[in-house]
Order: sequence, then structure tokens, then C-alpha cells
Amino acid sequence: MTAHYFEHPLNEKTRIYLRVEYLMRQLKVSAKFSDDLQYLLFFRSLFDLLEIFDQIQLKSELAKDIEKQRLSYRSWLNVDGVDQEMLQHVLQDIDTIHGALMQAERFGQSLKDDRFLSTIRQRFNLPGGACGFDLPALHHWLHLSDEVKTRDSAKWVGTLQALADALEMWLKLARETGMFKSHIATNGFYQSDAEDANILRLSIPLHFGVYPMISGHKNRFAIKFIDFQTGQACSDDIDFELAVCS
Amino acid sequence: MTAHYFEHPLNEKTRIYLRVEYLMRQLKVSAKFSDDLQYLLFFRSLFDLLEIFDQIQLKSELAKDIEKQRLSYRSWLNVDGVDQEMLQHVLQDIDTIHGALMQAERFGQSLKDDRFLSTIRQRFNLPGGACGFDLPALHHWLHLSDEVKTRDSAKWVGTLQALADALEMWLKLARETGMFKSHIATNGFYQSDAEDANILRLSIPLHFGVYPMISGHKNRFAIKFIDFQTGQACSDDIDFELAVCS
Repeated sequence: MTAHYFEHPLNEKTRIYLRVEYLMRQLKVSAKFSDDLQYLLFFRSLFDLLEIFDQIQLKSELAKDIEKQRLSYRSWLNVDGVDQEMLQHVLQDIDTIHGALMQAERFGQSLKDDRFLSTIRQRFNLPGGACGFDLPALHHWLHLSDEVKTRDSAKWVGTLQALADALEMWLKLARETGMFKSHIATNGFYQSDAEDANILRLSIPLHFGVYPMISGHKNRFAIKFIDFQTGQACSDDIDFELAVCS
Repeated sequence: MTAHYFEHPLNEKTRIYLRVEYLMRQLKVSAKFSDDLQYLLFFRSLFDLLEIFDQIQLKSELAKDIEKQRLSYRSWLNVDGVDQEMLQHVLQDIDTIHGALMQAERFGQSLKDDRFLSTIRQRFNLPGGACGFDLPALHHWLHLSDEVKTRDSAKWVGTLQALADALEMWLKLARETGMFKSHIATNGFYQSDAEDANILRLSIPLHFGVYPMISGHKNRFAIKFIDFQTGQACSDDIDFELAVCS
């Protein structure tokens, strides 16, 4: 790997979307229980998601945002030079996913109603709190057959399928709105305007040994590169690629 | 596996010891970074340990407890029928480990002083807070070579070696004080006296489908078995094995 790929949300809602995407990925990977510590990741991601669902009306936010994407794609109907067949496909996908989203329960409701999950959720975040004596019910569950554990975890993850599909589509379409272009951050600093942007995507060559600190909002942003070794602002010129996505 | 092995601490200090043992095990397993999510477990265990070190003077507690074990083993010196060679070995081990413990820094001090770890510790416990945009320094570190990551993690884990050795020995000697004996919990309930006990160890046949809820302290304890399916107290007679360890 020669470049560090990096994404930055330009508003709080997109920040949550990216966190949820990250947690959903952890959930799916750890649900294979490929080693005997994966359950820690699995339940942690599940409970982190429930905490996020408590903080934000994710379902209605996401439905509104998908509706915006639908309107934006509809405006390309019957426009010369636009691949109408592909456009129809996208609009159909949006309809299907939006429909499933509207029919879904409030995110996490059946997970919160699950007796077993409720039993273990509270202590799980204590430091070292997933010990057998803190969570005897969990440790009994861990002794059940792989078949039972896989069935249970598939059931829990399945309750989030409408969310997973909607979020995946929204982020995919959002990411596609931006094109990577080369830039130079003079003295390690770059700023620019953006128009109603949601996500910045950066590709930074690893050999510079820097990571980005980004501030900004939907219309303006600044990127400061930090030297990993010293933790200080870098004063070199940094070549990087940037895509601004709305 | 046909039985569920289960340990329960009978005082707050032993509770912490068992949690720390559990976290140290997570730390060592995840430090192999065998898949690309293991870093989550690695840093979580490390930061959970730091939180525990903030709450309790673990080093002095452990030193006192090892000193107690030394005195207890010394009382067997020159007693007929006691394998004196083996006893000398144990006493030598205790001396070595106690010495290393006394020379060690306050647990976690150099981890707390580590700039990189301090940078990422605070946000790590946010739900989904280990995303790239929340912790850009961490995500840069993840892109470094396996060699560098292994060197760094070995350095961090190495600062806890005296703790790991001391805790392992104390728990090993403590566990050896108890012998498993068969018991029956009539109507799913069992209670007994103990003399200055620290840990109860249970082996429960899985086919009963129960897990234990244990209350008690060093001199008296009660075990109530809970039916996993219903979450209610079990009213069957449960055959199980128990070792009371001091």
C-alpha cells in the first residue's frame, strides 16, 4: 500500500453515517466468530449502534436524504446525453430501498426488546466487564453450538438490514459525486470552498509520513497535515488527491 | 465441550485481578493483529487496563497479596511430608516476581506518557469513535509496516510484564488452593461457608442449560442457578463441581 485513503464528513449527520457504516462492517466481519475473541467486537459494535440510535432519529434522517438523492437523479430524466437506462436502474434501486426503509421498525427496537441482549448490554462497557462473572448469561451463550450462535447473530444483524442497505446506497451515491483531483498543500496546508459538500475523500502518499487534520463545513474546509513522528504541523509541500462529494 | 467452566471472585480486589487477567489475555492475543479488526481489541484492552490502573493501586495491592502467599508457603518449610525441593522452587519464583514487581514503574505510567496513545485514548470509547476521521493518527499508524506495528505493540505490552507475571503467579497459586468436589444444588440453589476465600471455581454440565448467579463474600456464599432460556431461577436439582480457593 503506498497511499493512505482517508474520508472526512463535513457535517454531523454524515459523521454519524460514516460511524454507523464502520460499525456495521465490524458487526458483519465479527459475526463469523472466526476466533474466540470476535464476540467482543460483535457485541461492542451492536451496543455502539444502539447507543447511536438513541442519540439520533437515524431512520427519518436517512429517509430524507435518500429522498433528496431521488429528486436529484429525477432531474436527469429525459436529459440528452444521460444514460436513461442506467438512470432508471438507479431510480428503481432508490425506490426499493426507500420503501424497505419506511417499512422498517425504529432502528434497534427489536434489539432493545431482546431479553438476552438487554441483560448483557449494561455491563459490557465496564473496563474488563465482559468477564464470565460479570456476564454469566453471555458466557453461557458462548458455550452454545456454533449453529445456535450463528442463528442468533444472523437474527440480530438481520433486524438492521434495511438500515444497512439504505446507508450503503446513500454513501455509494454520495461518494460517486466527487472525482479525485491532484492538489498541493503548500507548507502542509490546503483550503478550499465546497458547495453543499458532505464528504471529503483524500488519498495521501504514505511516504510523506503525515495525516490530515480537517476542519470545515459544507461550504468551506481547511486541511492541515500533521507529521506523525513529531505530532506537529508539517511544513513541507504535500501532493495529495482530493474528491469533494455531496 | 460438555461443561461450562466458571469463576467467581468473592471480593472486589480479586474481581479486579480477574478482569485484568482477562484484559491481558485479550491484549496478547490481539497484539498478533491476525486480522484487520484486531487493533480495535488491542487498543480497547490497553485503554481498559489504564482505566483500571486509575481506579486502584494495583501494584501495592498485588505486592501485599504476594507477600501473604510467601508467608503462607514459608510456613511449610521443614514440615514433614512436604516436598521441600518443590517448595524452594515456589519460594524462589515468588522472590523473583515480587522483586520485579517492586522495581516496576507505577502500572501504566509509560503508556500514559506515550504521546501517540494519549492522542487516541480519549475518542476511542465513543460509539464508533475509532473511525479514520475521529482518529487520523491511529489510521496513519495502521498503515505502517507490520514490523513497526509489532515493535510498537511489543513495547507497550512489555511495560506491563511485571504485572502480567505477578498476576499470573498469584492467580495460579490461589487457584491451586482449591480442589473440585461434587455438589448438588437442590432446587437450583446451593449455599455454603468458606474461610477467607477469594475465588469460587465451578464446572457446570452444559446439558442443564443454566448459568450461576453468585452472591457472597470471603466467608459465605450462595449460588442460584438461572435457566438460560427463560431467564428465571431454575428449580431443578443441579449436579455441579465446585472448588473454593483462597
